[in-house]
Amino acid sequence: MNTIAITHENGVATVTINNPPVNVLTIDLINEINAFVLSLEDDRETKIVVFKSLHETFFLAHLDLHVINGTQGGQAASIEFNHMITNIKKMKQLSIAVVDGVARGGGDEFVMACDLAYATENAAFAQPEIHVNIPTGGQGAVQYARRMGKNKALQALLLGNDFSAQQAEALNIITQYVPKAELDSFLAMILSVVSTLEVRDIVMYKEIIHASIIDENAGAEMELRYFLERAKENKTQAIIDAFIKHGGQTEREAKDIQGIFVDTAKELSK
Amino acid sequence: MNTIAITHENGVATVTINNPPVNVLTIDLINEINAFVLSLEDDRETKIVVFKSLHETFFLAHLDLHVINGTQGGQAASIEFNHMITNIKKMKQLSIAVVDGVARGGGDEFVMACDLAYATENAAFAQPEIHVNIPTGGQGAVQYARRMGKNKALQALLLGNDFSAQQAEALNIITQYVPKAELDSFLAMILSVVSTLEVRDIVMYKEIIHASIIDENAGAEMELRYFLERAKENKTQAIIDAFIKHGGQTEREAKDIQGIFVDTAKELSK
Amino acid sequence: MNTIAITHENGVATVTINNPPVNVLTIDLINEINAFVLSLEDDRETKIVVFKSLHETFFLAHLDLHVINGTQGGQAASIEFNHMITNIKKMKQLSIAVVDGVARGGGDEFVMACDLAYATENAAFAQPEIHVNIPTGGQGAVQYARRMGKNKALQALLLGNDFSAQQAEALNIITQYVPKAELDSFLAMILSVVSTLEVRDIVMYKEIIHASIIDENAGAEMELRYFLERAKENKTQAIIDAFIKHGGQTEREAKDIQGIFVDTAKELSK
Repeated sequence: MNTIAITHENGVATVTINNPPVNVLTIDLINEINAFVLSLEDDRETKIVVFKSLHETFFLAHLDLHVINGTQGGQAASIEFNHMITNIKKMKQLSIAVVDGVARGGGDEFVMACDLAYATENAAFAQPEIHVNIPTGGQGAVQYARRMGKNKALQALLLGNDFSAQQAEALNIITQYVPKAELDSFLAMILSVVSTLEVRDIVMYKEIIHASIIDENAGAEMELRYFLERAKENKTQAIIDAFIKHGGQTEREAKDIQGIFVDTAKELSK
Repeated sequence: MNTIAITHENGVATVTINNPPVNVLTIDLINEINAFVLSLEDDRETKIVVFKSLHETFFLAHLDLHVINGTQGGQAASIEFNHMITNIKKMKQLSIAVVDGVARGGGDEFVMACDLAYATENAAFAQPEIHVNIPTGGQGAVQYARRMGKNKALQALLLGNDFSAQQAEALNIITQYVPKAELDSFLAMILSVVSTLEVRDIVMYKEIIHASIIDENAGAEMELRYFLERAKENKTQAIIDAFIKHGGQTEREAKDIQGIFVDTAKELSK
Repeated sequence: MNTIAITHENGVATVTINNPPVNVLTIDLINEINAFVLSLEDDRETKIVVFKSLHETFFLAHLDLHVINGTQGGQAASIEFNHMITNIKKMKQLSIAVVDGVARGGGDEFVMACDLAYATENAAFAQPEIHVNIPTGGQGAVQYARRMGKNKALQALLLGNDFSAQQAEALNIITQYVPKAELDSFLAMILSVVSTLEVRDIVMYKEIIHASIIDENAGAEMELRYFLERAKENKTQAIIDAFIKHGGQTEREAKDIQGIFVDTAKELSK
């Protein structure tokens, strides 16, 4: 790996992007991300993949302008970039973009391909492609349309202007704005909660959400089927028994449901 | 009725939930809500159903944990709970949840099944099911996906964290945050306006909204058909004549359209 | 033209609505707007159409109440009004509503038919039709459902209450609230950026957005096809060469991508 570095710890893979000078999505970077993402299909250990950048001002710049042309190589590279977006969207693991810098064009599309995205006051998001005579090529326009509605999407795509993390949260480009000073503890909280889950839990909710957005009734049927199956599991009974023992279905739930969950986990780990 | 109390006044049915100790959705409560909701199908008097709680801290807790299992009785009760959600969604009357306490799991799903939901600073909303090894079972994940988009929904479902009423309004879990001190007058205003309408008006708009969300063109066709039919009614002509007589289509509309409606109503009630 | 005045300048057509006393959507005004909008189909000069009002307090009032009836003429006029909404939605040019006054009923529907809508502190938006015994007839309910979700839409349609520009922005009725004092400079900025584009750019993004909202995958396929075609154009290569020459793919992008675009434009205009 020349453009990304990967570390593994407790089911969390951290991918640090480092493609000087400004983290452009070159074909090398695209290929390395694709290879890693596809390797996760058969990975039984990794639950969460966190994407970060080593660069001080860029999270991830756009697709390498040198491949945006009519040559066979250029068109093939653009298609590989597009596949990278769909590969990330199809991951069974929970993907998280941690954005502390600029993410325009393909960088913005990369962020939106991830399941969750958190960004700081140093982040900037934009899809300025039209000013280079091209549309977005990694679902940028598709995602803008679906996330912010047709009017705000059209304005953003024609202007190509930057959005701050707060604006990006309001427009559903990212999940949440997190001040840089709180980023580490916020991310640690997210990872600690999700790490208690199984990969199949993440997959189940991704499937229900995907189905529900296309068809409300189909989503509702899938959800109920999963619910009835999961209700039968011994694991469910064990958790519920411990949960009730420690104050489930009593007043303690009102103000301290987290405490009940903590005591339940302790009980079960005995 | 052991777990709910129902009062009727001027076309408004008020259902007060009272299932000690903490308003858990037991099979008794589910059955009583289902029986009442289904009885409304042939009700020609009731226009609005308001759901409230007698409990100080809980609006409505989750589905009774004692039925979440693989027994025949447990699975049947879970399915009844799921039917309760779809029954509420299918009501012809306007359903309103007034939430002044905790609504997690099935309680949160109950709130989202209602047409409108108002909540105070005492409210808390969450879908923490995954931490008991199950998904939501009453369309919680379905509604989160459709109301807040896939990223924010996935975060909320994996974390299972509480949302305040203000957060719930921003995420479309509820219609509006209303401070407790203003709740009675706010609700009185809503009821006084909607009480001037007919049940068929509520049904018409629910149908158009439902159709429009699935297919924009189908919704537009339905809306125009209703418009042309309704335009022909004598009632429409009578209102329009009185409306114009009292300043419709003049400058008075700009700053005092409510006053024109008041004068129109007076004129018609002569 | 008796009810609208049209001026053309640098690819921007400005339509000023002036139908005293309060800019009601009379059949004359509807016919003149329809004739103008349909004339734009073969117009190769106009990129942007800005709709403004000459009236001090009304942007555009509702459909003329005198045509809302069961007569043949009334029903035909109502259908013409409905066609006006679909005609505006189908324009290839970028349509912009600049709202500095009241826009209720058909006026609100006109605003939502436009691609972009900006409104000041003097604006008010509402769909109060149900209080005249009719539903919306120009996709008002359809648009409310799709833009603000079923709960907030149902509340707004049953109450018929006014929304301020800030509220309308949050509910996606308009694109953005702009203080009256900043309106001229804001609009000049929008027009100056969009004027650098071609009509086919606007059409392309409208098509991708439209397809994406109906079907995410279909939108993604259309976007990629456009991307690969556009990448082959000489115009694209010329812009990219100049963009790279002036600091594209370097640190300059981080804080001054607008400067690179300015220098790129200068280079290309030599």
